[in-house]
Amino acid sequence: MPISMYHGSVPVFLQLLPALSGCLDKAQAFAESRKYDPNLLLTLRLAPDMFPLSRQVQQATAHACAPGRIAGIELPKFTDTGANIAELKQRIATTVDFLKSIQPGQIDGKEDSEVSVQLGPNTRTFRAQVLLYHHALPNFYFHTTTAYDILRHNGIELGKRDFMGQQPS
Amino acid sequence: MPISMYHGSVPVFLQLLPALSGCLDKAQAFAESRKYDPNLLLTLRLAPDMFPLSRQVQQATAHACAPGRIAGIELPKFTDTGANIAELKQRIATTVDFLKSIQPGQIDGKEDSEVSVQLGPNTRTFRAQVLLYHHALPNFYFHTTTAYDILRHNGIELGKRDFMGQQPS
Repeated sequence: MPISMYHGSVPVFLQLLPALSGCLDKAQAFAESRKYDPNLLLTLRLAPDMFPLSRQVQQATAHACAPGRIAGIELPKFTDTGANIAELKQRIATTVDFLKSIQPGQIDGKEDSEVSVQLGPNTRTFRAQVLLYHHALPNFYFHTTTAYDILRHNGIELGKRDFMGQQPS
Repeated sequence: MPISMYHGSVPVFLQLLPALSGCLDKAQAFAESRKYDPNLLLTLRLAPDMFPLSRQVQQATAHACAPGRIAGIELPKFTDTGANIAELKQRIATTVDFLKSIQPGQIDGKEDSEVSVQLGPNTRTFRAQVLLYHHALPNFYFHTTTAYDILRHNGIELGKRDFMGQQPS
């Protein structure tokens, strides 16, 4: 089967998002074993002008919803405050369920459709395949990797496999 | 045009690799302005058991060669030692030239071909599309993002746009 816009993206988000959730589980268990509040990890940053862990997870899940923008369906309404790990894990689970609800036929064939996205105060219009492969996926990977890097930098015992998750066969 | 295995990957590497090279340029200029040896940056890590910056760049370029594995062509022979920024920028440039030499017809249609890759002491066989989208691209993004994170954590003045590079239109 030739790859499609769906197959090069949705299964990738569905590989990395459960892995990110698993990293948060390990972070929580590690913090508890060291008798500190696991939610403190959510406030940590690699630089003062970079997002903290909570926002890295929020951004990753927001970018993972890009296939829904292309499908033209309603996106999940996230209500988490980013204040605790349980909320962020729920946010990831909501995103996974949302992505699983999208069928290939809802986005394939729309490669060159125009999709408008609100980026801060501006609206930007992308071709769908540019939005997905050159904007959403790079941003998604940036934030999932930085979330992992924040945890590793702060001593959480994780390895590359925790980041990579379960590859399809 | 429907997306193909080529179009969802090679142009993505060609967006992010020049951006990584640009981040190294900014790091070099920043270090020189602060009167320290820019190559010291290459030894920095986010954790003792994570790769230093030099190896992050080497791993990113190695994974970016995956389309060549699928095409069944000879991969670039890298000879850099990772000891200085100029060598690593040359390694990135070699990878960019290599990717530009690959034509869509050399990989499209091979989505389900088996490709064997040496991973440390082991040989692993992947379906081509799994190798590219579920192994090489996640690893590539992991190492480019971590390279950026190491630089930002050490005070180099970079922003998200430096990571993202130039998107196609």
